[in-house]
Amino acid sequence: MTLILSNEDIERILTMEDLVPVLEEAYVELAEGRGGNRVRSDIVTPTTFREDGLYALKSMDGVIPKFGVGAVRINSDILTFPRTDGQMRRVKAPAAPGERYVGLVLLFSTHNGEPLMICPDGVMQRMRVGGTNAVAARHMARQDAHVAAILGSGWQAGAQLLGLEAVRPLDDIRVYSPRKASREVFAQEMSAALGKTVRPCATAAEACAGADLVACATNATGPVFFREHVAAGMHVGGIRPGASEIDRAAWPDIDLFALLDHDDNAQIVHTHGVRLGEEQDGGMYGMPHDEFHAAMATLPEIVTGRREGRRSDGQVTCFLNNLGMGYQFAATGYLVHRKAKAAGLGHELPTDWFTETVHP
Amino acid sequence: MTLILSNEDIERILTMEDLVPVLEEAYVELAEGRGGNRVRSDIVTPTTFREDGLYALKSMDGVIPKFGVGAVRINSDILTFPRTDGQMRRVKAPAAPGERYVGLVLLFSTHNGEPLMICPDGVMQRMRVGGTNAVAARHMARQDAHVAAILGSGWQAGAQLLGLEAVRPLDDIRVYSPRKASREVFAQEMSAALGKTVRPCATAAEACAGADLVACATNATGPVFFREHVAAGMHVGGIRPGASEIDRAAWPDIDLFALLDHDDNAQIVHTHGVRLGEEQDGGMYGMPHDEFHAAMATLPEIVTGRREGRRSDGQVTCFLNNLGMGYQFAATGYLVHRKAKAAGLGHELPTDWFTETVHP
Repeated sequence: MTLILSNEDIERILTMEDLVPVLEEAYVELAEGRGGNRVRSDIVTPTTFREDGLYALKSMDGVIPKFGVGAVRINSDILTFPRTDGQMRRVKAPAAPGERYVGLVLLFSTHNGEPLMICPDGVMQRMRVGGTNAVAARHMARQDAHVAAILGSGWQAGAQLLGLEAVRPLDDIRVYSPRKASREVFAQEMSAALGKTVRPCATAAEACAGADLVACATNATGPVFFREHVAAGMHVGGIRPGASEIDRAAWPDIDLFALLDHDDNAQIVHTHGVRLGEEQDGGMYGMPHDEFHAAMATLPEIVTGRREGRRSDGQVTCFLNNLGMGYQFAATGYLVHRKAKAAGLGHELPTDWFTETVHP
Repeated sequence: MTLILSNEDIERILTMEDLVPVLEEAYVELAEGRGGNRVRSDIVTPTTFREDGLYALKSMDGVIPKFGVGAVRINSDILTFPRTDGQMRRVKAPAAPGERYVGLVLLFSTHNGEPLMICPDGVMQRMRVGGTNAVAARHMARQDAHVAAILGSGWQAGAQLLGLEAVRPLDDIRVYSPRKASREVFAQEMSAALGKTVRPCATAAEACAGADLVACATNATGPVFFREHVAAGMHVGGIRPGASEIDRAAWPDIDLFALLDHDDNAQIVHTHGVRLGEEQDGGMYGMPHDEFHAAMATLPEIVTGRREGRRSDGQVTCFLNNLGMGYQFAATGYLVHRKAKAAGLGHELPTDWFTETVHP
């Protein structure tokens, strides 16, 4: 049978406590050349949905033989490009019936090829981001880190906090985001979820003062973490490609930078000459791409000990989660599938619907 | 609703008569930069299925805004590499439950992103190959071509014949394949399907003598069409990558060669250092890759008139269908989906199962 799960099913069973070690093991497999990732591709075309919108078909694949699975993650997006404060942002429109988004993960067995699971990507997407930053914090933050500041109060911010909580015993948690109501709701919800006080702060400086761990998780296009926030021994994490969350003036104060992977160039196929808003020639990192990457370790290198991590409690470390990998959906999907089967969740469809007698 | 179709459903509704013009229109869109194709990728890893086997997760994508669809085609294959007559062949094992293969096509709407259809790829795969060679024959063969020779009697051979029949009124059809029983069964079945006599021939020379159209569609790894078979005015089609079906000694006699596309390098991700049998450095075409491509037109160029096709009835032309494109599954899927909806075929599943409220 092929399992069909919903985001609600996945949310019930996918915990950071389970996911962080699975992701870590997956990154070891990747670093050792035993797991494989195919970088993201996008085909970008016009859409009839909106004249100033675009259609994008995105896919990324990964296989982890140790877990016995491969995954394809697909996004079929209607993109819009609203301008706020003179900055263009890329916003997906929930254009599918019922005002819904379209993101899917298909999980396959490397043992016999069979399709094991088909499910939406949303909850897994958030958890693999938070889980990856948690793996980084586990290897890069001070052992005794216990004070965390979350900059941002959206969907990704919660996963960042859950991730940090899974790798360090936090006893002082702060959240800052520009809108008072948002940070207060976040503090309330996450306090309830963790059974610990999450304190809303009026400024990023207040949230970061004395923090051992800082997680940047906002929708802002500009920097949210500045030089004035840096303190000895701090570990900072970001989730946006291009390292744009960390103000360039703060970089000289950071002793160790790591990325998820150097190979962060999506393969983009354009039609009709259309271009995505954020695509720029050079300057993505505020420095040439090659120079940027030369200065960076990768998380798998640090996890496997090929590159040195933090050298002392006084060092400042920073992890930039610079790309999404189909590979992460293989790792997360492996865990979700195993737990969903055990819990009896989801719809089971005949595997025959997704297989064939014809040699393709 | 999202439509789930079987190969049997697709076989009932997908005809060459419908498909050839749709594919032709799709290639025009591609040539004009209005359609987009993302080249095939494979991630190749070990499998527990067989020690000497491999697992391969293959994907390819395409979007055709004019048809309002994008497609992702996925293959989750267990590969084996048996040796016959000293030649290694790549053979997929039907390893999924019920001894089945795993190939899927997912079709999405460019209008609103929604998942329109999920179905196995087998019948579509065969038809898009035959249909593409038919588009080539329509543009490259003599207008008055009416005698066809099919070299091969397998799954692809039938689609080749159906394709030629759709673009030229055939009145003399021959089939050759080495095993007498195979060619006789093929002749019988295709005679019944077409309502025309298909004549089995004991040699390729006999089948090709006087033929205007020759279709190579075998599993052989070596050449099947030789210099002695060439005659003035002939059009020859092949379906294997690497142009290996046409003996090199025959090439000087061919006036016009066309490929489907120059960009035929699959993106292959290896793990554990495993390699696919057919991967070789250079020599794939019996000449350097760049030199080979420089000598070739492409089918979309010929369809759009950017490159000259056949100049006279006496010229010998050859089309080499050198790669599979996700784009072809978008074109074929568009047609299949439209006809299946009209015929009320398949299972309808709630689109909500494959969409989400979460911004992915």
